Amino acid sequence: MAVEIERKFLVVGDDWREQATSRSRFSQGYLSTLPGRSVRVRVADNNAWLTIKGATVGATRSEFEYAIPVNEAQEMLDNLCQRPLIEKWRYLIHIDGLTWEVDEFLGENQGLIVAELELDSEAQTFTRPDWLGVEVTDDPRYFNASLSVTPYSSWEKH
Amino acid sequence: MAVEIERKFLVVGDDWREQATSRSRFSQGYLSTLPGRSVRVRVADNNAWLTIKGATVGATRSEFEYAIPVNEAQEMLDNLCQRPLIEKWRYLIHIDGLTWEVDEFLGENQGLIVAELELDSEAQTFTRPDWLGVEVTDDPRYFNASLSVTPYSSWEKH
Repeated sequence: MAVEIERKFLVVGDDWREQATSRSRFSQGYLSTLPGRSVRVRVADNNAWLTIKGATVGATRSEFEYAIPVNEAQEMLDNLCQRPLIEKWRYLIHIDGLTWEVDEFLGENQGLIVAELELDSEAQTFTRPDWLGVEVTDDPRYFNASLSVTPYSSWEKH
Repeated sequence: MAVEIERKFLVVGDDWREQATSRSRFSQGYLSTLPGRSVRVRVADNNAWLTIKGATVGATRSEFEYAIPVNEAQEMLDNLCQRPLIEKWRYLIHIDGLTWEVDEFLGENQGLIVAELELDSEAQTFTRPDWLGVEVTDDPRYFNASLSVTPYSSWEKH
């Protein structure tokens, strides 16, 4: 088991785009969206994974991840997973030795852009880029599992 | 993906016990108990698997199974899975070229014994042993996922 320490922020403006060194298309769906036992199927760049995440305590949560055949993942996305699926571009931005993952959502979550940073400890400091907005680490609406049940386009205002 | 064709029956009396050629202790739990997307963690004989089962159509359902490390499976059973866990002995009984799996449940499902037979087609015939009772293939109460939410000991009468 890995323990994941992750902070998540909204993204302001478009300046982040020119800092991205790569982007990949992600398709993912959920077999369980329960916060303490989410089960995610993800296909990215012709690889696929099944990922189980435990309860979030602060910015820390347990995570179990297994590589699986892409065709089986695709079958689960097509036939078994909660609708809507999560479709997004993931951009990587390297700043001062740390890697930001910026997710630009598509489909029913279009308009939402968030930046995530994986850290070694909850106390770790980091450089805040200019395009970083409000922190939403603890806001369950922004969990990808939540976005597959209540997508961004269905929220009351934004 | 495998397609699983399985028929399930209650077991009558104790004559089946002397026909069993092996038994193994199974511990299993569920990350999702939804009928169309159940996710099972199973530990048996120092092996472990993560198994996703799709919707049941007749006696047929899609199944995806992945071997995972036992210690990670045990962590998921201990910390993430639905309570109660399913604890059972699984006995194997070979009759006329087919293998019956007889599950004797323990804990909150104690008293329940079912026999399962995996077939190549829904039309396949088989020898009915004397100890075979009522067929419960289509009764969702007997799904292991259901037994982890509404265990046998909580049923109104039996």
